[in-house]
Amino acid sequence: MTSTHFTLGLVQMKCDPKREPNLQRAIQAIHRAADQQAQIVCLPELFLSPYFCNTHDLSLFDLAETIPGPTTETLSQVARERNVVVVASLFERMEPGMFFNTTAVIDANGQYLGKYRKMHIPHDPLYFEKYYFRPGDLGFKVFSTQYAKVGVLICWDQWFPEGARATALLGAEVLLYPTAIGWHPKEKAEFGASQYDAWKTAQRAHAIANGLFVGSVNRIGFEPSPMGEGLEFWGGSFIADPFGVLLSQASHDQEEILVARCQRDRMEDVRRNWPFFRDRRIEAYGGLVRPVGE
Amino acid sequence: MTSTHFTLGLVQMKCDPKREPNLQRAIQAIHRAADQQAQIVCLPELFLSPYFCNTHDLSLFDLAETIPGPTTETLSQVARERNVVVVASLFERMEPGMFFNTTAVIDANGQYLGKYRKMHIPHDPLYFEKYYFRPGDLGFKVFSTQYAKVGVLICWDQWFPEGARATALLGAEVLLYPTAIGWHPKEKAEFGASQYDAWKTAQRAHAIANGLFVGSVNRIGFEPSPMGEGLEFWGGSFIADPFGVLLSQASHDQEEILVARCQRDRMEDVRRNWPFFRDRRIEAYGGLVRPVGE
Repeated sequence: MTSTHFTLGLVQMKCDPKREPNLQRAIQAIHRAADQQAQIVCLPELFLSPYFCNTHDLSLFDLAETIPGPTTETLSQVARERNVVVVASLFERMEPGMFFNTTAVIDANGQYLGKYRKMHIPHDPLYFEKYYFRPGDLGFKVFSTQYAKVGVLICWDQWFPEGARATALLGAEVLLYPTAIGWHPKEKAEFGASQYDAWKTAQRAHAIANGLFVGSVNRIGFEPSPMGEGLEFWGGSFIADPFGVLLSQASHDQEEILVARCQRDRMEDVRRNWPFFRDRRIEAYGGLVRPVGE
Repeated sequence: MTSTHFTLGLVQMKCDPKREPNLQRAIQAIHRAADQQAQIVCLPELFLSPYFCNTHDLSLFDLAETIPGPTTETLSQVARERNVVVVASLFERMEPGMFFNTTAVIDANGQYLGKYRKMHIPHDPLYFEKYYFRPGDLGFKVFSTQYAKVGVLICWDQWFPEGARATALLGAEVLLYPTAIGWHPKEKAEFGASQYDAWKTAQRAHAIANGLFVGSVNRIGFEPSPMGEGLEFWGGSFIADPFGVLLSQASHDQEEILVARCQRDRMEDVRRNWPFFRDRRIEAYGGLVRPVGE
């Protein structure tokens, strides 16, 4: 990892009802990202299906698979063929009654490197994730890939500075956030802009506070729900540099591949000029790890 | 504290060479803020003097005073007279060789409530604070004033999500950041906009991550330094709501008083809709409080 840079590719996509077309479109997108010199390609959260957490349905647990498993094996072939790292968010089945919202990391030689299990699980109208997923039990993780040290977090994690910091302290050069977030149709007119802005601001702030690159990749498109009006996924994927400056920014409604070169000297420069890690007060942060109240 | 709201007033000011004119202008500004219904008035960092940390000079320790002490006594009179909380950043002398960058909080009845000592101390070109200040040893603090639970942090603290979170978990409804930050003249053209943007983004993100109000108040004006070109303090004070939306925003170069009403139902609403505190994983944040590396 002595290269002057690494190149990210984010695949902003819609997710259709059936698994196989989603997988094939993802594979095609990985090829297109590789054609554009991307070295680390990240897919959106749970890209193999519609965002099924918009309802409570026991039969949807059938969507889950083991990790490593059939999808990581398929993606390993693409990774090896194109010499790219693939970061893929999947619905993980470990054993009966143990399901996780998990992201697998496959190195550029096709080797499965490991997984991150989503630590912060939302549960809000049409985001009923606590029904499906056991909260992650592997802690925060960094993967030493061929091109960079990649920190992986997932969607709701993006609102938690603790996850970003803990992953940065493990040595991550980039935080990747596979995401599935959208607007409730009846809220969009009044709150849509401020919701998207808050989402992006929170993550750009992780880049700033930690002096590393951040890539956040979301799905697009409207998906109906049996339990409500459905969700309009807001796309808006982006890559920010270690001072929060946007390197690449997607639309709200188109499938796109974002590619950005991440210069290591930029990270070095930002962290020398803004040496926050030097001044952390670990002995005084006990409040962050204690129960609140009496 | 059953009122539907509290009203903040931030005093963006320049700081002249002599103490007394600065104190008098601050007092006048407190009156003007009170005239505009401000209930909690916050002054910029070390407002009684030029930003003396732009050089290393033993004689400048003479600027320090005890807290409580002469300035808090003077400000207590104004607080009582106008029935406003006053948050005042001062250079604290505790005993010989023990100096702190401290903010005093005075309640609306004039009572001295306590102090916060800056926990994260910068030391960078023209910000030579590690020479003057022992890092804060009182931890993070919230002050239960007559109008609101006020969390106080100071300048460089604003880059640390840990300080914001720890203070929020103590029950703060607002985080106040007295600040002295500016541009190096030769960097301004190339980096000035991104530096200000990063500064504001980091703090708006504290509002978002913690679901509370944030008020950041900076000085303005160019101040020469014996050790360099001097600093152009960038003003740009602001008040953000619990979703990071700007309620009030100052210019970069004018003395101004920012006043904003902070609605408690907005905080309640944001925290119900974006329930981050519900999902924190305190058992998994150990990396934040451990030494890094081997």
